[in-house]
Amino acid sequence: MTNNLSSENIIINKYLNKLNQNKLGTFNFKNDASFLKLSRNKKLIITNDTILENIDFFQNDPPESIANKIATCNLSDISAMGAYPYAYTLSLCLSNDVNNYWLERFSKKLLLLQKKYNYFLLGGDLSKSKNLVISANFFGFAPKEKILTREGAKLNDDIWITGNLGDSYIGLLSKKNLIKLNKIYKKYYENKYLYPIHSSIGYKINTIATSAIDISDGLYGDLEKLLISKNIGANIYSNLLPFSKKTKSLLRSKIVKFDKLLSSGDDYELLFTANTNKNSIIKKLAKSNNIKISKIGTISKNKGIYLDYKKIKIINKSFQHFF
Amino acid sequence: MTNNLSSENIIINKYLNKLNQNKLGTFNFKNDASFLKLSRNKKLIITNDTILENIDFFQNDPPESIANKIATCNLSDISAMGAYPYAYTLSLCLSNDVNNYWLERFSKKLLLLQKKYNYFLLGGDLSKSKNLVISANFFGFAPKEKILTREGAKLNDDIWITGNLGDSYIGLLSKKNLIKLNKIYKKYYENKYLYPIHSSIGYKINTIATSAIDISDGLYGDLEKLLISKNIGANIYSNLLPFSKKTKSLLRSKIVKFDKLLSSGDDYELLFTANTNKNSIIKKLAKSNNIKISKIGTISKNKGIYLDYKKIKIINKSFQHFF
Repeated sequence: MTNNLSSENIIINKYLNKLNQNKLGTFNFKNDASFLKLSRNKKLIITNDTILENIDFFQNDPPESIANKIATCNLSDISAMGAYPYAYTLSLCLSNDVNNYWLERFSKKLLLLQKKYNYFLLGGDLSKSKNLVISANFFGFAPKEKILTREGAKLNDDIWITGNLGDSYIGLLSKKNLIKLNKIYKKYYENKYLYPIHSSIGYKINTIATSAIDISDGLYGDLEKLLISKNIGANIYSNLLPFSKKTKSLLRSKIVKFDKLLSSGDDYELLFTANTNKNSIIKKLAKSNNIKISKIGTISKNKGIYLDYKKIKIINKSFQHFF
Repeated sequence: MTNNLSSENIIINKYLNKLNQNKLGTFNFKNDASFLKLSRNKKLIITNDTILENIDFFQNDPPESIANKIATCNLSDISAMGAYPYAYTLSLCLSNDVNNYWLERFSKKLLLLQKKYNYFLLGGDLSKSKNLVISANFFGFAPKEKILTREGAKLNDDIWITGNLGDSYIGLLSKKNLIKLNKIYKKYYENKYLYPIHSSIGYKINTIATSAIDISDGLYGDLEKLLISKNIGANIYSNLLPFSKKTKSLLRSKIVKFDKLLSSGDDYELLFTANTNKNSIIKKLAKSNNIKISKIGTISKNKGIYLDYKKIKIINKSFQHFF
């Protein structure tokens, strides 16, 4: 035993996993959320995400952006489990930088999101803190108690993705002045970074998809999580990967790196697998919900991720969540 | 609107209260916990408490103590609602001071408490942080869906309290070197501060008591919360207030102040009211559970708290929790 802090993955496996006592619904901390089985026909989906100043957001980010982030990262997990949100609790550790005007803007944005996605605040906790730390638990239900997990992908399933990849990551690069963008691009991307919108269709695909995960650590890392437990692989194709027009032009002019867009960033889009016979249903769903859903490849026998037939070497990503 | 941070009470009333959207079970953030009504016959009790380094514990406190505190403050809220715990989620924001040995001791204590009170870890979130911040949501059930709240106290009800008052507060004074105690006393009180044990009998009194609250801000402040909404008062008597033998001797020698013991400290005992006809049941309950339960007074018509017929002036206490 060393005196250094283990990687987050090791912390979970070595110290925290035993605390689940092998109970149903914890998934050994290997899904986006867990559930409590409350009766024969009732499961409550529960997720927990915490965001911290200087790590998940910048000190001077608008309060609306911080409200948006704590809601979005949790709502995204609820959606990835095939569920819709119902309520949440909020732990606010407020620093001295927080004043009444901040609170007014922060709570107004929270209410806006509550009304948009139809959930309410159950309660929580207030503390004073050196740095701003916000933690939330979100509770949701899955239609017909059908919960989507990361474990159901089957050989020859199609691999689908909602929305576009990399926008939020490019926004982060711009905010950090690591790339220089023109005014219009800067505004577009930084807005995507500050106000990410999760893909909320999880509860609409929970009988269609065989597995799902939200993209919160980059496509590669999250796709890998769909494959690991089943010993399967994925063939994906660069020409099928969804990027916004602006991102395509940045890729052409080599301002951003293709690989980086697939291994970083909080996209909060859904990555899911489905049998090929669901093809037309998924296309209809995209149309009726006015969203982009792209087929990016298929599940194969060969372990690992293959991009255009070339195996991707994945640098072991840390796990920020233990569900 | 000023640029200063409002008191916690104002934050809740002005900015957060509207977020509950008047939903059942939130109690307008005025109870120890809230509940989700999941079906006609199923309510899930939910509470959230967060503890922070240098505020709720000291940086070098034993990891077992920190584990004990995050569990106890939440378990105490669950008990105050007349419920028993079922599961919890844990958000760990870990500082660089945390190493493997710390994690091993911390998680071992968590598991011990889980086994003692029969609940399990559902999942959570891991982050890196400058200071250690730990937030938990605890979930519980109330027998026969009978939830205890702060609002049910009736005229002429008896006022009861479990355990002893002030031990944890004296421990804090000793840890801060604000009082000097001999070795035996020092060990006793600091142990009470580091390893508080909540009163877990809430679920056993939920059909006996008319109202309940856990003492987490001192007797006066918490008793006041049982009275406010009903426009009633309390007559309590100093000779009936429960103190340990050691505390009685410290009071006699004026090393600690009587008033301070009633207005400070995390006792995590239960304060509850009950009709006088429950007197013998409560005494039997105390005996069969091998715990101390003391009758300290009665509910009266005159608003406010009267100690030995003298009205107590309560300095408005801040609310650390919005449930």
